[in-house]
Amino acid sequence: MATRIESDLLGELQVPVDAYYGVQTQRAVENFNISTARLSQYRHFIWALGVVKMAAIKANHEMGLVDDKVKSAVVQACKEVMEGKFDKEFPIDMIQGGAGTSTNMNANEVIANRALELMGYEKGQYEHCSPNDVVNLSQSTNDAYPTAIKLSLIKMNYILIEHLQQLVDAFKKKGNKFANIIKMGRTQLQDAVPMTLGQEFCAYAMTLSEEIERLTQNANLFREVNMGATAIGTGINSVEGYSEACVKYLCEITGYPIVLATDLVEATPDTGSYVIYSSALKRMAVKVSKICNDLRLLSSGPRAGLNEINLPPMQPGSSIMPGKVNPVIPEVMNQICFKVIGNDLTVTFAAEAGQLQLNVMEPVLAHSILESIQFLMRGMDTLRLKCIDGITANEDVCENMVLKSIGIVTALNPHIGYKNSTRIAKEALKTGKGVYEIVLEEGILSEEELKEILKPENMIGPAKRTCQ
Amino acid sequence: MATRIESDLLGELQVPVDAYYGVQTQRAVENFNISTARLSQYRHFIWALGVVKMAAIKANHEMGLVDDKVKSAVVQACKEVMEGKFDKEFPIDMIQGGAGTSTNMNANEVIANRALELMGYEKGQYEHCSPNDVVNLSQSTNDAYPTAIKLSLIKMNYILIEHLQQLVDAFKKKGNKFANIIKMGRTQLQDAVPMTLGQEFCAYAMTLSEEIERLTQNANLFREVNMGATAIGTGINSVEGYSEACVKYLCEITGYPIVLATDLVEATPDTGSYVIYSSALKRMAVKVSKICNDLRLLSSGPRAGLNEINLPPMQPGSSIMPGKVNPVIPEVMNQICFKVIGNDLTVTFAAEAGQLQLNVMEPVLAHSILESIQFLMRGMDTLRLKCIDGITANEDVCENMVLKSIGIVTALNPHIGYKNSTRIAKEALKTGKGVYEIVLEEGILSEEELKEILKPENMIGPAKRTCQ
Amino acid sequence: MATRIESDLLGELQVPVDAYYGVQTQRAVENFNISTARLSQYRHFIWALGVVKMAAIKANHEMGLVDDKVKSAVVQACKEVMEGKFDKEFPIDMIQGGAGTSTNMNANEVIANRALELMGYEKGQYEHCSPNDVVNLSQSTNDAYPTAIKLSLIKMNYILIEHLQQLVDAFKKKGNKFANIIKMGRTQLQDAVPMTLGQEFCAYAMTLSEEIERLTQNANLFREVNMGATAIGTGINSVEGYSEACVKYLCEITGYPIVLATDLVEATPDTGSYVIYSSALKRMAVKVSKICNDLRLLSSGPRAGLNEINLPPMQPGSSIMPGKVNPVIPEVMNQICFKVIGNDLTVTFAAEAGQLQLNVMEPVLAHSILESIQFLMRGMDTLRLKCIDGITANEDVCENMVLKSIGIVTALNPHIGYKNSTRIAKEALKTGKGVYEIVLEEGILSEEELKEILKPENMIGPAKRTCQ
Amino acid sequence: MATRIESDLLGELQVPVDAYYGVQTQRAVENFNISTARLSQYRHFIWALGVVKMAAIKANHEMGLVDDKVKSAVVQACKEVMEGKFDKEFPIDMIQGGAGTSTNMNANEVIANRALELMGYEKGQYEHCSPNDVVNLSQSTNDAYPTAIKLSLIKMNYILIEHLQQLVDAFKKKGNKFANIIKMGRTQLQDAVPMTLGQEFCAYAMTLSEEIERLTQNANLFREVNMGATAIGTGINSVEGYSEACVKYLCEITGYPIVLATDLVEATPDTGSYVIYSSALKRMAVKVSKICNDLRLLSSGPRAGLNEINLPPMQPGSSIMPGKVNPVIPEVMNQICFKVIGNDLTVTFAAEAGQLQLNVMEPVLAHSILESIQFLMRGMDTLRLKCIDGITANEDVCENMVLKSIGIVTALNPHIGYKNSTRIAKEALKTGKGVYEIVLEEGILSEEELKEILKPENMIGPAKRTCQ
Repeated sequence: MATRIESDLLGELQVPVDAYYGVQTQRAVENFNISTARLSQYRHFIWALGVVKMAAIKANHEMGLVDDKVKSAVVQACKEVMEGKFDKEFPIDMIQGGAGTSTNMNANEVIANRALELMGYEKGQYEHCSPNDVVNLSQSTNDAYPTAIKLSLIKMNYILIEHLQQLVDAFKKKGNKFANIIKMGRTQLQDAVPMTLGQEFCAYAMTLSEEIERLTQNANLFREVNMGATAIGTGINSVEGYSEACVKYLCEITGYPIVLATDLVEATPDTGSYVIYSSALKRMAVKVSKICNDLRLLSSGPRAGLNEINLPPMQPGSSIMPGKVNPVIPEVMNQICFKVIGNDLTVTFAAEAGQLQLNVMEPVLAHSILESIQFLMRGMDTLRLKCIDGITANEDVCENMVLKSIGIVTALNPHIGYKNSTRIAKEALKTGKGVYEIVLEEGILSEEELKEILKPENMIGPAKRTCQ
Repeated sequence: MATRIESDLLGELQVPVDAYYGVQTQRAVENFNISTARLSQYRHFIWALGVVKMAAIKANHEMGLVDDKVKSAVVQACKEVMEGKFDKEFPIDMIQGGAGTSTNMNANEVIANRALELMGYEKGQYEHCSPNDVVNLSQSTNDAYPTAIKLSLIKMNYILIEHLQQLVDAFKKKGNKFANIIKMGRTQLQDAVPMTLGQEFCAYAMTLSEEIERLTQNANLFREVNMGATAIGTGINSVEGYSEACVKYLCEITGYPIVLATDLVEATPDTGSYVIYSSALKRMAVKVSKICNDLRLLSSGPRAGLNEINLPPMQPGSSIMPGKVNPVIPEVMNQICFKVIGNDLTVTFAAEAGQLQLNVMEPVLAHSILESIQFLMRGMDTLRLKCIDGITANEDVCENMVLKSIGIVTALNPHIGYKNSTRIAKEALKTGKGVYEIVLEEGILSEEELKEILKPENMIGPAKRTCQ
Repeated sequence: MATRIESDLLGELQVPVDAYYGVQTQRAVENFNISTARLSQYRHFIWALGVVKMAAIKANHEMGLVDDKVKSAVVQACKEVMEGKFDKEFPIDMIQGGAGTSTNMNANEVIANRALELMGYEKGQYEHCSPNDVVNLSQSTNDAYPTAIKLSLIKMNYILIEHLQQLVDAFKKKGNKFANIIKMGRTQLQDAVPMTLGQEFCAYAMTLSEEIERLTQNANLFREVNMGATAIGTGINSVEGYSEACVKYLCEITGYPIVLATDLVEATPDTGSYVIYSSALKRMAVKVSKICNDLRLLSSGPRAGLNEINLPPMQPGSSIMPGKVNPVIPEVMNQICFKVIGNDLTVTFAAEAGQLQLNVMEPVLAHSILESIQFLMRGMDTLRLKCIDGITANEDVCENMVLKSIGIVTALNPHIGYKNSTRIAKEALKTGKGVYEIVLEEGILSEEELKEILKPENMIGPAKRTCQ
Repeated sequence: MATRIESDLLGELQVPVDAYYGVQTQRAVENFNISTARLSQYRHFIWALGVVKMAAIKANHEMGLVDDKVKSAVVQACKEVMEGKFDKEFPIDMIQGGAGTSTNMNANEVIANRALELMGYEKGQYEHCSPNDVVNLSQSTNDAYPTAIKLSLIKMNYILIEHLQQLVDAFKKKGNKFANIIKMGRTQLQDAVPMTLGQEFCAYAMTLSEEIERLTQNANLFREVNMGATAIGTGINSVEGYSEACVKYLCEITGYPIVLATDLVEATPDTGSYVIYSSALKRMAVKVSKICNDLRLLSSGPRAGLNEINLPPMQPGSSIMPGKVNPVIPEVMNQICFKVIGNDLTVTFAAEAGQLQLNVMEPVLAHSILESIQFLMRGMDTLRLKCIDGITANEDVCENMVLKSIGIVTALNPHIGYKNSTRIAKEALKTGKGVYEIVLEEGILSEEELKEILKPENMIGPAKRTCQ
């Protein structure tokens, strides 16, 4: 393979002659071979790197630090990076040492070489446009890298929320469809009191819809960036006004309401926004996992389980048990949720490991959160399309369990008192009889009164106040 | 010990004759003997139980379901519970099965018996005021118990924030005091560029102050309660209007802007607010732990460490090494943070374990969060009073490290370029010489230029823009 | 309160005149007020401190470093500490900074003062028997403290295993009792193939019995101690032969096969044994939690659930639903398991935070593991006595679910092939008919053949090989 | 693309005509699109699937259940699968629902079609060799799948240990090289007492070498398999003697001492071995992370840090700070450790989620553990080759810190007492003087005595016993 020679602090190194990336990217490829996750697979993150570099060069130009020609070339190069033309030129492992320096330099090198090309130079003629002195001007990895992560997370959060909204809608639709199916509610896995299957599914929709606000609120923390912090937040090697200009351009390019952190020395090592956003993903995972547990319970059976609902069969359930169909989609979703919870712990450890003016564990923070988002998006689509949309109800099964239940005795409390109701419940449990039957036998209430009280529609909401 | 006989679904049981609590509390004491944490130690939680029961009886009275006399007695009993007169009557373990039924019944029984006493009856004459039919009227454990937990957490969060604010102020004060002490900033534990010790301490103040907003925002989710949900959110055995009335009284009694959940079937098993609030505590713990790690690093030495600051000595540091003084206060704070992070995992597990219409693991959720808050409050006070307030700086040590550092070469970048600076840095490292010295030797910049560039005040912020 | 004056590196301090503890304990009480867990509540840990100090004084005497008189007095004082006579003299918080120095000095002070008393001196006349120069002779907190923790954990592990064995036996007893009750096995919550309830409970016994070996194997790592390491493992201020003598006395006093770590510099900061023992507790918690989840599933109902078994009712299940009885004991056990898992994370964080020659987070490590053991012991007793022992089976329910199941079609595979069986299963599911019925209708097998194949006893184990 | 039609319980589906896999694999590809981890990337796992299927067909043949011709073809097909000829035919996502049914069927299908081919049939002519009735004969996913996972983990553990041993050796080699470099030991980041750099590195070697035994011991639990359990451990559809035969062949094929679980009903849902092995990985990660933290501390500086050792420079450390070299290799290793700890939590959650006769979360268990092993292997090689091997010591720096330290006063304790030593230490701290100087000034010891006591070689081990 044809190569060109580049050099850095450590000496010379061969780089593929056609590569837009340069010596530092090459070193990183050789140094870090840990996961299978390469930068090149993270479209939104590469987009964000392009954004950051474009905002920086525009701000530097505004500050009078680069001339028009170089600025134009660099802006164009950034645009192309944003659009995905150079994704393949980002070969580095997402999990890397150096607090993201390799990633930042990869972007600097690709953009510099593309700008050189646009200006009519050869790759590597950095005297005309240097990765460090021009593309990275007024920056450090310690501001450019976290800012790019944050921009990509803002973008991915928007997409995540779209997928989540679709899942919410799917549950809502089922909830409406099941609005008139009466069934037993259960607390502590024991028969409780009646409700509708519609209430149950609407509750799933509602509880997930709350996550939209939660994710949004927490992702908003990513809007605060530290451009201009340079190495440690003191802004060394930047000029007054650069920070503000840079943020202005970030807003302009992305359309997001990016703001400058109040205290750049504080903002530079701070990973609080990752911690709480990852926690918000964890919260969603906890909810989704609980719902999948429920779906698996409600569809248990078909004959030795609850059997209230049917999940659409997606594959033969067993290599040995003919006819068995398993809840494979909720099952895979549960597993995704466990990955998200595990990733959140990785984030916690990484965040706690920050030291003094920097948190060097940012790459694994970014990797873990991005993986969680991707898994959740794919999982939620899978859950919606291959499960929720196709759920059907076993209306008779649901209704029969209400009729034979003891729990409906609860509705008698206001009429005959808790102690009396308790006695009847015990009698029913002992004899196998129904509550209805016993109450009539004992002449406690008339058949008419009883019917009125035990009407399903009277048990699934508060009583109308007719007298005071 | 003299006893009285009470009975419930399971039969009769002896209760101490003077006890305000009754048969169900007695059973719970016998059933659950797990931790050393008794309800009686949780003043704010007992207060909250009193609040809930007072709001309920007032709402029931407004609905026409209890008469004036009973209502007055119960209100007075609740007031006394709120004030702490009966804390000793809450002997149950915080960690309990039954989703809090024992706790709820403990409150019902104490209030019923105190109300009976106020009305001139004997304890246990429940026909005049029943724990279930009166004090628990229109309620279930499944609404009353989580509502009480949430009210107590709102209250404790306010207190936590006060302690946090004091810690923030302590850091800010030190930050101002150290405003003119120049020192080396460090990234990746390697010498980076200069900053002031004041910037470092102000950053601690700033980063912690952000937690106030975070805690507040997340604690706000506790304001949403499910009173009127009764067993599973359908409101069985409550009457229309009760929920709203009950919430109105909660606001009135507490002064907090409590609101009713939109969907009570959703709200009843939902533990999302605990999950994210616990995560917010975890985020704070992560930040505090990082700061304590820093304090221990910065005060390392005295002669074979960084030795930039001195923590006030709190105890002899060693049973064998004379004169050794250790950073014992940050150390204990780190350990508290690890407990908080562990508790957050317990919360995550407990939340994920919710099933169908209820999450039965609420007791351990409450216990874990309350423990985290208590530990953090005590820890933050300890940290402030026994450590931060007494920190002093070793100004000379700080300054000397800047003077002999190589990192200041960074400030030359804009003047001589990154490649040139790199060469000088390598030279300095190899020869042991100073950057200053080499630059002058090589005649790259005049002494005057160099002095100007390397002035500390010019290195700790962005450059003034003098020309464009 | 009458006081005496003592002094240390930091100056003078008042100590209660009657206190056996001294100035450093007093400082620690004032410094650390975090949790409610005081050393005084940890009987086995105080015993272990006494053991360590006794072994040390005997070894020092053997080395010729203390005279007979002092040795005798100190030995007697240690004996009394081991026996629990001075538990109240250990008032310090378990969660403390200083890597356990306060705890070690507390033991040193109590023993020194008791020895002084035995020799006819006043408390505080340390010139005759100094906490540091005599009781702590040849030791540092960094060897004495972790050794004491390890000894106490060995002891507690033995006790834990006794409780665990009793739980195993309780499950085994039920397993035997239920040996002939046929029921449906379930995989993925879907009906699978038949088994006996006895097989299910015997499996619980078996899976928990494996934990005995696991706990034992991992607790064995605690047998390796670092006495003689002194401050950092180099053994400074100890004499050759002391380490071995000390370990010899530890064996003698405890009867445990204690061994000396091969590399004391390695052993001193190492917390690996805590990490893996805590993991073993976590593994047990995971298993116990799974079993409790199962018990709650199997006893769900009574009419809208599986209802295969009945847990003994321990308390009325609901403040609103009469007659409801909940699985409160498995529920509390689940919560204990979540605490154990949370504590394991605290241990992980604390272990990772070790730095250079010491892990200063040992106090929270010890606290977390001790709490987990205590909770598990109490929980397992509660589970056994208040739940497992009283479980009864609903034999008819179990059998009926087998008869009406589709899963028994699996047994036909070897006779009619998987594809054929699948078709019959689909038919059964669609029509609601039984497998038996369809096979006969279609004339695939004779009634006799079918009966033989579907005999329960033929379905719950491998087929006899009768022909080949 | 040309396709053939296959069918299963759910109906017909098109499969690429050349594919060795069949309908169920195809469904799984369509159902599960979650992660980027495909079975095809897991060489050792595919090998293990081949092993399991070969053992099964041999056992079935021995039981007289398959004829020689089919057996030979299937054995050959299994052999080729083991050797990696069909890795590309395993396109399914590692994270899947269905408890591994898709993976098991993928193996069944590939092997059946290859066997068909070997026997001269077309792919899909399953009447001559069926994936279910022949390749899966006497098996279920619930025994074949976990057995394959366990075999692959045994194999990978051996490989992991080789990499670990190399890392241990690298540390040992450095330890020997640094045997005579005296330096300050530190506890709680405070100067403690002297040691050698060799002792420090040997301790790293020792502490990691202990992991070999720990991993081995815990991986041994994977040797227990449940072949013959079929669906739920009762062995339905297998014949007596099959289990034992199958395990015999597993031993024969792999050379591993595989054993049959005592209680197959217990063994089938049990995930205890994963839990504790993952914990052992976590323990190793905790240790490695601690070591990397130390390496970063010891190499901190170069001028404002400890600067005791130099890590080999692997890349320019900063995009802004010229000459900065960062400890990027330990940094990436730390991040790997955090991933391993996060994965362990995923394992814990997945294990706890087992229900009744199966744990359906096994795929994510397997995925998480395999990822951890891979990351650790790559990380340890990286750490060894790119960091440990190239570490050099700054001998002068190390020695100077000992000379100016106060901690050496500890060595005076046995000669002048703790109280006296304390006074000298305070004096040294206050005045900035050296311990040596003060002792001589005060005439406490003669110069000769002092020299002897403070000889480095006398401070880094226990004293010789010269008198008793």
